Amino acid sequence: MATLLVDKRDQMFILKEMLDIDALCRFPKYASHTGYPMVLTEAHKFANVELHPATAEGDRQGCTYDPKTRAVTFPDCFKGPYRKLLDGGWLAMCDSPEVGGDGFPLTVGTAVSEVFYAGCFYLYGAAELTHAAAKVIETYGSDEQKRIYMKRLFAGEWQGTMCLTEPQAGSDVGAVQTVARPNADGSYNIVGTKIFITAGEHDLTDNFVHMVLARIEGDPAGTRGLSLFIVPKFTPDAAGNPGARNDVYCTGIEHKMGLHGLVTCTMAFGDSNGCTGYLLGERGKGMPEMFHMMNEQRLLVGVEGLSFSSNAFLHAVDYTQNRFQGGSVYPDRDRNAPVAIINHPDVKRMLLTMKAYVEGGRALAYFTSYCIDQAGVTEGEESGRWHGLVELLTPIVKAYNTDKSWEITALAIQCAGGYGYCSDYPFERLARDCKVTTLFEGTNGIQAIDLMFRKLLGNKLVNFRTLTGKMDRTIAEAGRIESLAGYAATVRRAKEELEATVEGLAALAGSEQGLDLYAKTAPFLDLMGDVTLAWLHLWQLTIAEPKLMEAVGAKGKGEREAILAKNKNAAFYYGKVMAGQFYIGTLLKNSFGKFERLRAEENPVIDMFEKSFVA
Amino acid sequence: MATLLVDKRDQMFILKEMLDIDALCRFPKYASHTGYPMVLTEAHKFANVELHPATAEGDRQGCTYDPKTRAVTFPDCFKGPYRKLLDGGWLAMCDSPEVGGDGFPLTVGTAVSEVFYAGCFYLYGAAELTHAAAKVIETYGSDEQKRIYMKRLFAGEWQGTMCLTEPQAGSDVGAVQTVARPNADGSYNIVGTKIFITAGEHDLTDNFVHMVLARIEGDPAGTRGLSLFIVPKFTPDAAGNPGARNDVYCTGIEHKMGLHGLVTCTMAFGDSNGCTGYLLGERGKGMPEMFHMMNEQRLLVGVEGLSFSSNAFLHAVDYTQNRFQGGSVYPDRDRNAPVAIINHPDVKRMLLTMKAYVEGGRALAYFTSYCIDQAGVTEGEESGRWHGLVELLTPIVKAYNTDKSWEITALAIQCAGGYGYCSDYPFERLARDCKVTTLFEGTNGIQAIDLMFRKLLGNKLVNFRTLTGKMDRTIAEAGRIESLAGYAATVRRAKEELEATVEGLAALAGSEQGLDLYAKTAPFLDLMGDVTLAWLHLWQLTIAEPKLMEAVGAKGKGEREAILAKNKNAAFYYGKVMAGQFYIGTLLKNSFGKFERLRAEENPVIDMFEKSFVA
Repeated sequence: MATLLVDKRDQMFILKEMLDIDALCRFPKYASHTGYPMVLTEAHKFANVELHPATAEGDRQGCTYDPKTRAVTFPDCFKGPYRKLLDGGWLAMCDSPEVGGDGFPLTVGTAVSEVFYAGCFYLYGAAELTHAAAKVIETYGSDEQKRIYMKRLFAGEWQGTMCLTEPQAGSDVGAVQTVARPNADGSYNIVGTKIFITAGEHDLTDNFVHMVLARIEGDPAGTRGLSLFIVPKFTPDAAGNPGARNDVYCTGIEHKMGLHGLVTCTMAFGDSNGCTGYLLGERGKGMPEMFHMMNEQRLLVGVEGLSFSSNAFLHAVDYTQNRFQGGSVYPDRDRNAPVAIINHPDVKRMLLTMKAYVEGGRALAYFTSYCIDQAGVTEGEESGRWHGLVELLTPIVKAYNTDKSWEITALAIQCAGGYGYCSDYPFERLARDCKVTTLFEGTNGIQAIDLMFRKLLGNKLVNFRTLTGKMDRTIAEAGRIESLAGYAATVRRAKEELEATVEGLAALAGSEQGLDLYAKTAPFLDLMGDVTLAWLHLWQLTIAEPKLMEAVGAKGKGEREAILAKNKNAAFYYGKVMAGQFYIGTLLKNSFGKFERLRAEENPVIDMFEKSFVA
Repeated sequence: MATLLVDKRDQMFILKEMLDIDALCRFPKYASHTGYPMVLTEAHKFANVELHPATAEGDRQGCTYDPKTRAVTFPDCFKGPYRKLLDGGWLAMCDSPEVGGDGFPLTVGTAVSEVFYAGCFYLYGAAELTHAAAKVIETYGSDEQKRIYMKRLFAGEWQGTMCLTEPQAGSDVGAVQTVARPNADGSYNIVGTKIFITAGEHDLTDNFVHMVLARIEGDPAGTRGLSLFIVPKFTPDAAGNPGARNDVYCTGIEHKMGLHGLVTCTMAFGDSNGCTGYLLGERGKGMPEMFHMMNEQRLLVGVEGLSFSSNAFLHAVDYTQNRFQGGSVYPDRDRNAPVAIINHPDVKRMLLTMKAYVEGGRALAYFTSYCIDQAGVTEGEESGRWHGLVELLTPIVKAYNTDKSWEITALAIQCAGGYGYCSDYPFERLARDCKVTTLFEGTNGIQAIDLMFRKLLGNKLVNFRTLTGKMDRTIAEAGRIESLAGYAATVRRAKEELEATVEGLAALAGSEQGLDLYAKTAPFLDLMGDVTLAWLHLWQLTIAEPKLMEAVGAKGKGEREAILAKNKNAAFYYGKVMAGQFYIGTLLKNSFGKFERLRAEENPVIDMFEKSFVA
């Protein structure tokens, strides 16, 4: 069977050869989990056999809403796979045994998530939200709340949701108008409308647990007046069994570009003034509590973006291997016999571009998870440094990987020509689906603002310097391998230009041109992504290049390809080295123009007059 | 009413102030057409009132196919507008009075096409195909063929189609297997299957005239064995009225990412061995005859890409003017009151980026049409130079404008946040629809190969030097305007780097690294587009900057904005100048990295081993 979801060999390369997860597993916290390769194998099996077959049909059928019953129906092909996903205990694989989890490192969990998102974005997306709600309750819930909700959520028995957005409160969460009035029994009467609620209502679970941001009557305006509430669909009785129907209903669903297999609901709380909610954590701390989970959620959205790119790339490889069209331009081949189009240089350029961004984006996402794992097993300043890297890299994983998914899925469409536009192939669906990842959990514009002002400047560049320190070590190591010296020099140049750029941004802050910073957020995030990927590719080259040299040495094309055809491992390292060399030697050159762009003054943006866009 | 399709003021700026269409109209061929501004006004009215309202509903309903009757039904809201489009005589506005046309310059026709595509891509797309078929018959048809088919096609009474692609013959047209066997009466018996046939069958016209590429039995393999045939759905009788049903049927339609309102058919010719076709033009000349029309078709596809970008940009301006969210970051405004998000720098950056590419892409498309017009009214070498520019620029208009539409529609989605992903707004539809323009009439990969090998190197850089000569004149002129000198210098630098790059490519051809060229086609086209747009922006600045200075001088922000708020014309020039300055001063800087990239050796692409993409 062709590998069409995620390249497991590449995952293992990153986990084992690059990040040395085996060493991580020597920490007592993870001691029993050296068996992660087997888990990954199982995940691939499950994604290919159970999840993926439901996806195209789920997109075709979509979710339906019945305004009479206010019920949402999922595609009928979802029930079996969803049950099996929960029964497999996959949701809590990185959680502690006390809550029913398996305690795997998050890095391994991230690898599994990529596979499951690629298998079925809709089903795993719904399940992941439940997991996020479980984590919020684990962190902030009372013992009673934990007893009733937590394990059921970790097991996926009930659906969890995140209810932040309102029609007038999107990126500006502080504008939330949903109100909570205290009841005599300590509970709250919730009234308000939330929109864009993923999986707010459906027929796959018996109960729903909504995490709702609302303002207790009289509390201040803005985000600091917001509190977090648990609003169950059926209020659990003392034993935790679903009881009375609460006054929260789905009043409509969105018709969207994609994500047809995962419903997006408008939720009305207290339309009949009978919606009861329960304060979760501290009054007025709703935002920080939500945001405690946000980093991990944003990392996961980045993994979603990656999964679309991976999926599109592997399907494109498969398509171009099997589509014969046009003669070869290589002088050693027959010009007149049609060849598989994977052999045409322009197609190879597209595929190698995809491969470079997929494998770079994968290293980026896994490395960020690895930093979370490291922060959890180290202490003091060391742990702080790992945590700082997580802070810095999270908006990049989220925005860069999802922005790239729009480009990569489009390249895959181009590889398939007209067929790429037709629903018989997955390419067009992947492009439609991936776009939502640039929007939810904070638009990519919001990520870029977060990176510039909180993660970079707000932190006086400390986290940034931790990152460039790591880059320096890789550059030095690569410089010692003769065949990599040129690539090391290019990455050094990029890193130095990045440092100079960041110094320039820091100098802008507080200067007369300070507003320029606001016009530079997104281009800066993009460039941070470019250079970080260059470092990660160089790191991978330092591992793969010596192994490739061992297998093929400096042999010519004919001999080399004879070896690669027989030796799968050598073929893998060859692809890894080509992708890294193409990224650093060719694609990264684009970034040197982007540095120039970032140095430009942004007067036209800052001075632009509203009525002059169309006059 | 907000301007939501195409900015007419900008169209008029390009037509009148930049290209001086009034002077073009002094040539006898166009002498009676100084009234083009009125025609443009009528086109906008028609597009807004009749075409645009049908579009969202057309996308929602889609086209349906009944396998029993093999009939295709268009959305019912299309009938009225389509009739009115034909009755308005719009199709033949640039054709000669002898065929029922109005003889307008093509530049004006291109402006009208942009408006109509933006109004309804589906309906105007169907009509334009009919027009293309009419032109083929005008150029190559016998007197009898012209008498029967031509005027009916120019009037849009019957639907014309282009039938090239077959399952095994996409980009490789020479692989066509449809066969034509001579009948005793001089007609041909056609047998074969064509796919991806736009408007191959529907219920808006009484008859269909298919232009079919087929191989006469015994003719050589490859493109030089192909001939062109007219295959009517109902064979016209001597009076030209639809007669007997011909054996050509739609056997299925594609389910696509977008373009739901314009059907894509699989057409079976001669399934019952009763399909009659009529040779059009010369035996064995099918390809050159098709390609005679291709330049104009490709230009039009570029205009389609532009129309999506324009539509998305103007809807984004409208949305962001009316969406209030978050406080202003400008020091002179209230930080706490929500402002229209058009005032946030990151949103302004997105809008200004869109504006710069829309107005640059528009200038590119109109200028290329203008070259066609000039080639038609000049003679000898001068005409040849204009024609050379058309040759060079056409693949750029097609591929660059359609590639950009994928980026621009995505930016528009980002401007609208989560709403951008929902079908209540046009953004997601525009993104889905625009993707097909990167694929049809030759994928953008094919355009880039055409540009590199035929239009650039195949022509020994003559056309390229004609273009850079024009750039030189604009750079010199801009250099004489003090406030533009810096921008002129940046464009000069870009032009000189482009010249050096092109010399480098020419040197590669025939060298040992010659294969590298095949890996550089698409990045080169992209860069040609970047630099050509820079030139066109500079040209526009030389006109707009003095007019802006006249209106506002060097006044500060407050005084300036007071003038702009009152003076629409000044507000337009201000927007034009800001877009041009942003493009050249900021966006173009990215291109200097792309030059570096193009200089890189492409060994990884050329050497990549098929089995190493996934090992």
